[in-house]
Amino acid sequence: MTRLTRAEQQRRTHEHLLAAGRQVFLRRGFLAATVEEIAADARYTRGAVYKHFGGKEGLWLAIIEADADGHLRGLREALAQATSRDEVIAALNPVDVADKDAAKWSAAAAEVLAATAQQPETAALIAAIQRRHDDEVASLLAEHTRRLRLEPAMPLDQAVVMLGALGIGLALRQTVAPAADPAAILTHVLDTLFPPYTREP
Amino acid sequence: MTRLTRAEQQRRTHEHLLAAGRQVFLRRGFLAATVEEIAADARYTRGAVYKHFGGKEGLWLAIIEADADGHLRGLREALAQATSRDEVIAALNPVDVADKDAAKWSAAAAEVLAATAQQPETAALIAAIQRRHDDEVASLLAEHTRRLRLEPAMPLDQAVVMLGALGIGLALRQTVAPAADPAAILTHVLDTLFPPYTREP
Repeated sequence: MTRLTRAEQQRRTHEHLLAAGRQVFLRRGFLAATVEEIAADARYTRGAVYKHFGGKEGLWLAIIEADADGHLRGLREALAQATSRDEVIAALNPVDVADKDAAKWSAAAAEVLAATAQQPETAALIAAIQRRHDDEVASLLAEHTRRLRLEPAMPLDQAVVMLGALGIGLALRQTVAPAADPAAILTHVLDTLFPPYTREP
Repeated sequence: MTRLTRAEQQRRTHEHLLAAGRQVFLRRGFLAATVEEIAADARYTRGAVYKHFGGKEGLWLAIIEADADGHLRGLREALAQATSRDEVIAALNPVDVADKDAAKWSAAAAEVLAATAQQPETAALIAAIQRRHDDEVASLLAEHTRRLRLEPAMPLDQAVVMLGALGIGLALRQTVAPAADPAAILTHVLDTLFPPYTREP
């Protein structure tokens, strides 16, 4: 095995801890997850978690920031390739909304949001990550709906907040009553959000 | 003061504990709330909470069931009086979606939903309350959209789940970033849900 430089080792530790954090938050939820369990899962010490992320909240923030970036990259690519209204809708419809892990992840996210009602500093950090993501999505949508001459049924900045809120709300309901069909509901909402006619050129 | 019968006393205790539960869940969230604090708020013993509701979860279930019934009564009345599409939309648009207490209450509800991911029995009880409420709302909407010749943009049972999920999702976001305008977003969604044309008679 090639010897790693110190920077490479650090980056690797960072990635391992992010991956272990995801697993443990998914398994336990946010509140019940402990730095001990995350460190043990990644086969590092608790100290490594504190050194890299400052603690459990910092690790959570790093994960949702990485996820927001990943979602944005995927969306940018899918929208760049979209040539029709249906492809815009498909790009926005998360493939995993009915997925059990997605529902559990949203439940963990809801726990964090509920808990941060009492913690203005964490709330501000989460809000900043969310706002940056939402602004980018709105500006991508503005670009591509213009290109494809689509006429959204509501202002795009509100549409983005709406889709995010609906996604987490549907996932939360899934954890309690998996009877509803969240994918069908999202498809209907996206259908009405981008009515099937195009602007006059 | 008139002496109360035993049944009247019991009913009164029940109501006082429900009211105290609301206050404490709103103040602390669900997980941090304790039976001790609720009992102290209502000026009863912990035993009274256990006797009337079996504990904190039972009290929570009693509160959300009472709220679901109250919402349904109000909606039934408002829809019965509605004579136009705009009045149907107004009846469905919760007046308090941007309200701070409503956001905190939804955060508490989200905490419960997240926690019940691990508790199938409580999840089943919550799901039953929610399903009964949603079914009644869908059937009320079916009756009055037919009467007013409105053509909903998606199946009404899905629309009801969608509005509930959107409501809790928007409220959760409000706890973190009160920048978005949830009332405007809900109005847009309701506008597209009931397009402004009527069926041919």
